[in-house]
Amino acid sequence: MAAKQDPKENLGISIKKNDDPAEWYGQVCLKAELAEYAPVKGCMIIRPRGYFIWETLQHEFDRRIKKLGVQNASFPLFIPESFFEKEKSHAQGFAPEVAWIANKYEGERIAVRPTSETIICDSFKRWIRSHRDLPLRINQWCNVVRWETEATKLFLRTREFLWQEGHCVYATSEECEKEVLLFLNEYEKILKDLLALPVIKGLKTEKERFAGALRTYTLEAYMPDGKALQCGTSHHLGQGFMKSFEVSFIGEDEKKHVPYSSSWGISTRLLGAVVLLHSDDKGLVLPPFVAQNQVVVIPIIFEKNKNEIQDYAKKVWCKLDWYRPLYDDREDHSAGYKYAEWELKGIPLRVEIGPKDFEKNQVVVVRRDTGEKEFVLFDQLEQRIPIILQNIHDNLYEKAKKNLEKSTLTAESWESFTTIIAEGKLAKMPHCTESKCEEEIKDKTKGVSARCIPLEENSKILKNKKCFHCKKDAQATVIFGRSY
Amino acid sequence: MAAKQDPKENLGISIKKNDDPAEWYGQVCLKAELAEYAPVKGCMIIRPRGYFIWETLQHEFDRRIKKLGVQNASFPLFIPESFFEKEKSHAQGFAPEVAWIANKYEGERIAVRPTSETIICDSFKRWIRSHRDLPLRINQWCNVVRWETEATKLFLRTREFLWQEGHCVYATSEECEKEVLLFLNEYEKILKDLLALPVIKGLKTEKERFAGALRTYTLEAYMPDGKALQCGTSHHLGQGFMKSFEVSFIGEDEKKHVPYSSSWGISTRLLGAVVLLHSDDKGLVLPPFVAQNQVVVIPIIFEKNKNEIQDYAKKVWCKLDWYRPLYDDREDHSAGYKYAEWELKGIPLRVEIGPKDFEKNQVVVVRRDTGEKEFVLFDQLEQRIPIILQNIHDNLYEKAKKNLEKSTLTAESWESFTTIIAEGKLAKMPHCTESKCEEEIKDKTKGVSARCIPLEENSKILKNKKCFHCKKDAQATVIFGRSY
Repeated sequence: MAAKQDPKENLGISIKKNDDPAEWYGQVCLKAELAEYAPVKGCMIIRPRGYFIWETLQHEFDRRIKKLGVQNASFPLFIPESFFEKEKSHAQGFAPEVAWIANKYEGERIAVRPTSETIICDSFKRWIRSHRDLPLRINQWCNVVRWETEATKLFLRTREFLWQEGHCVYATSEECEKEVLLFLNEYEKILKDLLALPVIKGLKTEKERFAGALRTYTLEAYMPDGKALQCGTSHHLGQGFMKSFEVSFIGEDEKKHVPYSSSWGISTRLLGAVVLLHSDDKGLVLPPFVAQNQVVVIPIIFEKNKNEIQDYAKKVWCKLDWYRPLYDDREDHSAGYKYAEWELKGIPLRVEIGPKDFEKNQVVVVRRDTGEKEFVLFDQLEQRIPIILQNIHDNLYEKAKKNLEKSTLTAESWESFTTIIAEGKLAKMPHCTESKCEEEIKDKTKGVSARCIPLEENSKILKNKKCFHCKKDAQATVIFGRSY
Repeated sequence: MAAKQDPKENLGISIKKNDDPAEWYGQVCLKAELAEYAPVKGCMIIRPRGYFIWETLQHEFDRRIKKLGVQNASFPLFIPESFFEKEKSHAQGFAPEVAWIANKYEGERIAVRPTSETIICDSFKRWIRSHRDLPLRINQWCNVVRWETEATKLFLRTREFLWQEGHCVYATSEECEKEVLLFLNEYEKILKDLLALPVIKGLKTEKERFAGALRTYTLEAYMPDGKALQCGTSHHLGQGFMKSFEVSFIGEDEKKHVPYSSSWGISTRLLGAVVLLHSDDKGLVLPPFVAQNQVVVIPIIFEKNKNEIQDYAKKVWCKLDWYRPLYDDREDHSAGYKYAEWELKGIPLRVEIGPKDFEKNQVVVVRRDTGEKEFVLFDQLEQRIPIILQNIHDNLYEKAKKNLEKSTLTAESWESFTTIIAEGKLAKMPHCTESKCEEEIKDKTKGVSARCIPLEENSKILKNKKCFHCKKDAQATVIFGRSY
């Protein structure tokens, strides 16, 4: 491997993805300079190459939800303890992982927000008076803190993370449900369009539901190490939070009504999904649309024609300006070293320019995802590069989608269920959807949980089926698996 | 006043700007729906109309600094106490206003970041090896917490606020100084271009310097109530933080060197400046480029021609799509009520459409800043509206600039200094720049502080001047005033 050309620099991933996925994952995040561990345990620093992915996702998703009538706002980091207690199941759900402020209590404890339903609903009480104020669609991009006790995993499990949280209020449950699904679909779209990340959309079982929600919809992705990864959720909160925070509105009938609310979020966790899903033994593989540099231009310099080749390479670099190109003409590193470095850091396309290419007025274009080489004439660059980038994106998505499909298997019995699970795949089966049964399954399988009730599957009616585990009447087809 | 047409709704500001500026300011922020007080004392909620201003500023400034080579990243909210102690003057400066985390200490106290120099410099130690890694320009958009004990003022003094903090590292002090001034100038530009906010650029005296800085440059604005408002700062941090956090690089000479660092920030405090500076007794006046709605279209409906007028008004509304127009055809409010409401909320332009306008194929355009009316033909809208919006922006800026200039007076003696100060203006005088002298002035005048050493003024040489207060040799011309 090229990465081994200069062992002093410790370039390259020292372990294969299949041999030790956890160690491999950590090395990719660190060596591709996406993130690093912060001094305070459980926190992370997102480096510019990683933050670029988040920013790009943020800008595009923000644009899309604004078109749907969502407005951004900013709510405080600090939430009084009494606010949590107003919605009891919410308080219970979040209690173990709340961080508190030490000094200057002012009568009660102050939490660092783990999520903002309570403080936002408190504002909604003042903002909502009439049916004319509905629907109200508010979003914030912010940091939240959940004091995890399990081992830190960059992006995937950190005490502080960045996210957006949408909070909407509707006059009717039907409207609310409709938009809970609308934002779920928006998530599915943006994950596909930017991150090349295919997901299964589904409903969470009661046990896995958001604390305080009536229904939680989820997007579950399947990672190459056999674990499901929850990529986003959209909750129908019913009237629970609205009642607890005394939100009401005067309807067209001039009577007082209690509205319905929802919340929905995606976080920097998605960056972990991108790394896990697409990357390989050489390092990071990035979907082109979120890559800080989509192209790296590397002139291969010999003494002969040195100036001409550099001039030509710079012309190529300028022509590719739209693609956030990096120009690497460092003279103290070999071409091989540079190839390895930019493969490690996940630049989707490498453009090599040697003496022959200069003579032929062409370049060599090498794809990061497949390693495929192609000669492109200088005059064809503007036409060809966007097509290759789109092909990379499509290839990453299709590969992941095929893997998701072939790894989500339908169990025929409890025995076949355990076999599928043992193979590190996701198993679908008829299930009673009772929490007790789920807990027993989790115990028996050492950690397998209900990932979701897939929406597609459950449009078909389940007739006369029994839960494969407890033998009670099945309520739904449920996907089980290990998860992050 | 139109606002009084419907007293039940409590629309409009109940006090004049000149009579009680503090009460007036609070009412404008609340009633124009820019912000509200959060349940945890000292914190605020930024509502969509307020957040829009911040977002717009953020997007444009982010675009501009990226062109200058700045990259965004994200550093943790939590900083170990020991990090503060590494840079002593920094620790002392921030100690009184740090909020600490209560639970799970892990050996030492954990602070909620009041600013991020320490944690960012700790990363720089790992990121910087060679002169090739410099200059390094990093920025983050985030929240910070300073546990203020003085009374809360929305945007101007809150325990949590949003900001950007740029942190750069350079090989030489000269480069560092050059870019400290570059970002200061970028601030001046964006404040002018988006917020119509004129400022005096200057250097802080030793007493007013950022804790840990070698030099602090500042942008000082002058508010109509006679107080200066610090709008942004750019610090040359010298080698202090670099040495404390052991950041070094191997130079082209292959020797180890200590680099120089800078930091620079603007915050949601700027929203307070915008409100204070431009608004009036009717409510918010917003510079058009940061207004969520630049135009409100109001059809004036009588029974006659009702449908035709509404159709025409909607055509106008569609034609003005570029200007984020609001369409207000509520039938349960009078036109006068609507005028007052949108004046209160600061929409820069009102477009009225009555029966006569419909007949003449025109509209009435009313400027929020001056109240001036103008008839504009339908076919002229696209040409005329952007011109009027630009005129509003320019008028706000010029008015504020004139006021800044005529309120910054040169004292001829200590007596004239005290007279200027008593008139609520800014006073310029030769000063020794010693902290002790500044403290005495502050005591004598009940709160007047050195705002800055204006850059423009101090390009001229001070010869044989004495400090008007202590009579020692003057070191610089210094502007003094009361401040937020």
